[in-house]
Amino acid sequence: MPSELRKDPLSQRWVIIAADRAKRPSDFDTEQDIKPPVFDPFLPGNEAKTPPEIASYREPGTLPNKPGWRIRVVPNKFPALAIEGTLTPRGDGIYDRMQGIGAHEVIVDTPKCVRSFTGQPDGHVQEIVWMYRDRLVDLRRDRRMKYGMVFKNVGQAAGATLYHSHSQLIVTPIVPKNVTQKIEACQEFYNFRGRCLICDMVAQESEQKVRVVSDSGSFLAFEPYAPRTPFETWIVPRNHESHFEDIQQQGCEELAFILKRTLARLELGLNDVSYNYMLFSSPFDCGPLPHFHWHIEIIPRLVKQAGFEWGTGFYVNPVPPEDAAEYLRGVNM
Amino acid sequence: MPSELRKDPLSQRWVIIAADRAKRPSDFDTEQDIKPPVFDPFLPGNEAKTPPEIASYREPGTLPNKPGWRIRVVPNKFPALAIEGTLTPRGDGIYDRMQGIGAHEVIVDTPKCVRSFTGQPDGHVQEIVWMYRDRLVDLRRDRRMKYGMVFKNVGQAAGATLYHSHSQLIVTPIVPKNVTQKIEACQEFYNFRGRCLICDMVAQESEQKVRVVSDSGSFLAFEPYAPRTPFETWIVPRNHESHFEDIQQQGCEELAFILKRTLARLELGLNDVSYNYMLFSSPFDCGPLPHFHWHIEIIPRLVKQAGFEWGTGFYVNPVPPEDAAEYLRGVNM
Repeated sequence: MPSELRKDPLSQRWVIIAADRAKRPSDFDTEQDIKPPVFDPFLPGNEAKTPPEIASYREPGTLPNKPGWRIRVVPNKFPALAIEGTLTPRGDGIYDRMQGIGAHEVIVDTPKCVRSFTGQPDGHVQEIVWMYRDRLVDLRRDRRMKYGMVFKNVGQAAGATLYHSHSQLIVTPIVPKNVTQKIEACQEFYNFRGRCLICDMVAQESEQKVRVVSDSGSFLAFEPYAPRTPFETWIVPRNHESHFEDIQQQGCEELAFILKRTLARLELGLNDVSYNYMLFSSPFDCGPLPHFHWHIEIIPRLVKQAGFEWGTGFYVNPVPPEDAAEYLRGVNM
Repeated sequence: MPSELRKDPLSQRWVIIAADRAKRPSDFDTEQDIKPPVFDPFLPGNEAKTPPEIASYREPGTLPNKPGWRIRVVPNKFPALAIEGTLTPRGDGIYDRMQGIGAHEVIVDTPKCVRSFTGQPDGHVQEIVWMYRDRLVDLRRDRRMKYGMVFKNVGQAAGATLYHSHSQLIVTPIVPKNVTQKIEACQEFYNFRGRCLICDMVAQESEQKVRVVSDSGSFLAFEPYAPRTPFETWIVPRNHESHFEDIQQQGCEELAFILKRTLARLELGLNDVSYNYMLFSSPFDCGPLPHFHWHIEIIPRLVKQAGFEWGTGFYVNPVPPEDAAEYLRGVNM
C-alpha cells in the first residue's frame, strides 16, 4: 500500500500514514520501564512526604493527610506553575512574558502501588473521573485562570517519573495554542455547516465502523482518521457537551467503564505500552459552546518523535488506524 | 525563582520556564543509546545494501554505488513518502486525504562509522552542508513539491535507528503547518513593523548577549527566548536570507564551522546527549521573502514530552535559556 497523507480536521495537521513501514505491535522498541519504587510517597502512611492535600475521597471519620483515603489530591511537589502571584504581562524587547501562575496538582488514583488504574473496580475508576470534575469545578472559580487540562502519564516512555498510578491537572492563565487551534477549527466548521465537527466525526465513525474500537452506547472509542501515533485512540461522548465538568453521574459511570476497558485493551494488546491521555474540555470563561465537544485523546508511546516531526508538526505513522482498530477490537479481554 | 511564561514570537507558543524544577546537566535521565552495529549498511563496500545512490561526492574515477565516496545520498529504504504518483486530493466524508508522494532521502555524512560528524574535519562538514543545498536545489524543480526539510536524528532518544552518522531530507507536497505558522507570524510582524522578526531577534540577542552561545561573525548561535527543551539552540545567519539553498560558498564554510562547534559543545557539555536538528527554509514556490529568514533549530532530547506537552503544545522547561547559554559558553572545547 502506498503511503497516504491524511488531515486531522480538528488540529488541521496532516499525518503521513506509511503502511510500508508497518510493524506488528511486537516489533516496536520497548525500553526499560520504571519499576515500583523502594520508597513510595503515595502509599497510605506516607502522607507527610507530599505537600498537604487539597482534596480527597476518604472513609468517614479519617483525618486529612492521614490514611483512610481512596483518592487523594496534592499540589505537585515540583510545580510547573504556582497559584500565588499576579499575572502582569511584560515585554522584553521583542519578546513577551508573564509570571508563571496557575495550578499543578497530582491526583493519586488509588492507595495501591499499581502502574495504572485498569485493575481497579469500576466504582473506583468512577471516583477518579469524578475527582477530575470536582477539581476543575473548584479551580475554574479563580478568575485569573482560563483553562484546565487533566492528563496522565503511564510508563517511562510517556514521561512518568513515579510508578504509582496518578493523574495530573494543570490550570493555566492562557488558553494553550493547541486548544485554541482545535476550537477555531470547530468554529469554522460550525460557521460553514451549522453542525459540530466532533458530532459529525462520531456520526461518520459510527456508520463506517472501520475505526471503532468499542461503543458503550453514550461513548465511542475509536482510532482517529489521522492518528499521530500507532494506536492513538479517542474517547468521545456521543451527545454534544462542550464542558467535561458538566458531566452527570450517569455519564461519569459510563465514561469510567469505557476508559478503563480501552486502556486495558491497549495495555494487554501492546505489552504494557507506555501512554499519555489528555482530556480536552472548553475554556473556563465561556458558556456552553455549540461548536466544541469535550473528549479524551490517548497516545501510546511506541515510536519516538524525531527531527521531522519536531520540525514540521507532520507525523509519520506506520500503522493505519483501520488496522489498529481491528487489532484492538480483537484483544481478548 | 518563580516560574515564568515566555512566548516564542516565531511559533507563537508559550513555554513555562520552571527554574524550581531545575536540574544540572548530570541530573537528566540518560537512557541506553544505540551502539555501533555489527553490520553497518553505510560502510564503503556495503553500497549494495542500500537503494542505488541519488548523488555523491566521490574520488575521481570511482563508480556510483562503489567505494570512493565521501558523502553519499540514497533513498530512505523505508520512505515515509515516495516520489512516484500523482497528488489527487480526495475526500472521505468529512475527512481529507491525498496520496503520499514526496521524497525521503538519507544523506550518509561520512564513510566512517561514527555517531555524529563533529569529529570530522571542517572541510568535510562543509561538504555535508553543500550536499544539503544540492539536494534541495535538485528537488525543488519538481513542481508538485512545496517544501523541503533537512533534519538529523542523533542518538536513540532522538529517534535515530542507525548509529552511523546520517542526515535526512523530506520533501512534501504541502507546506507543513509548523512552517506555515512561523511564516505567518513573521509576515504579521513584517506588516506591522516593516522588519524581519528573525533579523530583530538576532539584533536583540547580539545586544543582550545573555543567551548567546557563540558568534562567528556572519552566524549567531543562541538559546531562544522561549526554548521548548533545556539547551535548545538556534543557529541563524546574521544577514537576511529567506532560502537556505541560496547560500554562497563563504556562508557554507562559516555555517559548517559554527554548526560543528555548537553540536560538539552540546555533546561534550551534556554527556553525548541525543539531539535533533531541523533546517527551516522558505517554501519552494516563492521568490525571496523579505519577512522569513532561514535558520537551524537544535533540540537536545534530555526530557521526555509528557501528556501536558502533547495536549497543550505548551512546553515545561526546567532550565532558563540564560543559564543554558552560560553553561554552554563555558564548555571547554
